[in-house]
Amino acid sequence: MSDKHLGKGSKNPPLSKGKLRLYSMRFDPYSQRVHLVLDAKKIPYDVVNVNLTEKPEWLYEKSPLGKVPTLELESGDCIYESMIIADYLDEKYPQRQLYPKDPLKKAKDKLLIDQFNKVISNLYRLYQNMDREFLDAVMKALDVFEREIVSRSKPFFGGDKPGMLDYMIWPWCERSEMLKIMGGDQFVLPRERFLRLMEWRNAMKEEESVKVSYLEPEIHAKYINSHRAGYADYDLLLKIN
Amino acid sequence: MSDKHLGKGSKNPPLSKGKLRLYSMRFDPYSQRVHLVLDAKKIPYDVVNVNLTEKPEWLYEKSPLGKVPTLELESGDCIYESMIIADYLDEKYPQRQLYPKDPLKKAKDKLLIDQFNKVISNLYRLYQNMDREFLDAVMKALDVFEREIVSRSKPFFGGDKPGMLDYMIWPWCERSEMLKIMGGDQFVLPRERFLRLMEWRNAMKEEESVKVSYLEPEIHAKYINSHRAGYADYDLLLKIN
Repeated sequence: MSDKHLGKGSKNPPLSKGKLRLYSMRFDPYSQRVHLVLDAKKIPYDVVNVNLTEKPEWLYEKSPLGKVPTLELESGDCIYESMIIADYLDEKYPQRQLYPKDPLKKAKDKLLIDQFNKVISNLYRLYQNMDREFLDAVMKALDVFEREIVSRSKPFFGGDKPGMLDYMIWPWCERSEMLKIMGGDQFVLPRERFLRLMEWRNAMKEEESVKVSYLEPEIHAKYINSHRAGYADYDLLLKIN
Repeated sequence: MSDKHLGKGSKNPPLSKGKLRLYSMRFDPYSQRVHLVLDAKKIPYDVVNVNLTEKPEWLYEKSPLGKVPTLELESGDCIYESMIIADYLDEKYPQRQLYPKDPLKKAKDKLLIDQFNKVISNLYRLYQNMDREFLDAVMKALDVFEREIVSRSKPFFGGDKPGMLDYMIWPWCERSEMLKIMGGDQFVLPRERFLRLMEWRNAMKEEESVKVSYLEPEIHAKYINSHRAGYADYDLLLKIN
């Protein structure tokens, strides 16, 4: 999954029989959402990493807007948009159902996934400009999740195992420690304010499904810094290993 | 469903037993999505119309951002966001399933609902400023839907009856004829370009589920004009009837 990112002029490798293919970018949190669902359900899949700065011409045949994540099925059908792919996989592959069975609980988890967009949008403002104001907005949006996990009294939002809500918000939580690397001690989330979320984060890191795509905060920071400097270093893992 | 819109200082009427309650606004297309699903499935429900300019204080207890549509269940639980409510209703009330059963077809319909946002955003630009440029963008986004309904060779996107995709895009299609009222003949969608969509629109108008919330383009134009003039005339139907 850390293979070279294919760019303009590249050839799209032929499909493997009996496997899904995920068009992804190694540092893209939306793509990671789909990796997590595939890995949680142990669905066999191939990864084709895509250079998003110099997009390969064939990408537009798979995804009309040339976006990742895009999932290609054996039939050649393609689906894009991380949430639509995640919901599709949960319906198509009933092993380890990730949404609650009860429609009301499911709707409430979807509302929380939706509300997490507020965390995401403020995180991106923060990456662009390490301003305390944006950190405050991130924390205010995270308060909802701290209260929620306290009220659920379980290690994960999904109960004793992570569910769809856990996986959909995880990619940005995995990256939260890089704020300290980028902005120093004043950009550490206060432990006492997010006590249960911190425990949750530690528990998530121990999950097999999470370990598959996990990267250390230093690596995430390195990527983000390359992106901010104007050249996204998609293949930086190949240089380190 | 055309009752007076409750505003600041109003009291929220007590819940009726055995009925869902929809907090709505009579001219809001997102609220109409939920009306359509409830009416298609013949689920009994009450409507409480809300004045969105002078929002009632109690609205924030139902929906944290004070938004409509919000659906209140008998238990007092509330769900908001039109798509999340629509999906909830389709799962909870299995009569006349609105999504295709096949997960791939369902995912593709969700992608189209998502793509329709491009029509919506350009329509709003057009309402603000009757500029041909925005009409061109609307038409370009609609081409996808014309091609799609041609390729499906059925009266509705959902087949012989409207499905979720039909209902989720309908509110804006119901309003499309008001463009002519607002901007004159140059704002009529060309018949030859959208031949099948026009037939589809006529077929939709004949559906019982659509008739319940249907309003004539003149009425929609009247509301939009009041909104553009700075005072949204929520109760305008009460004055006409």
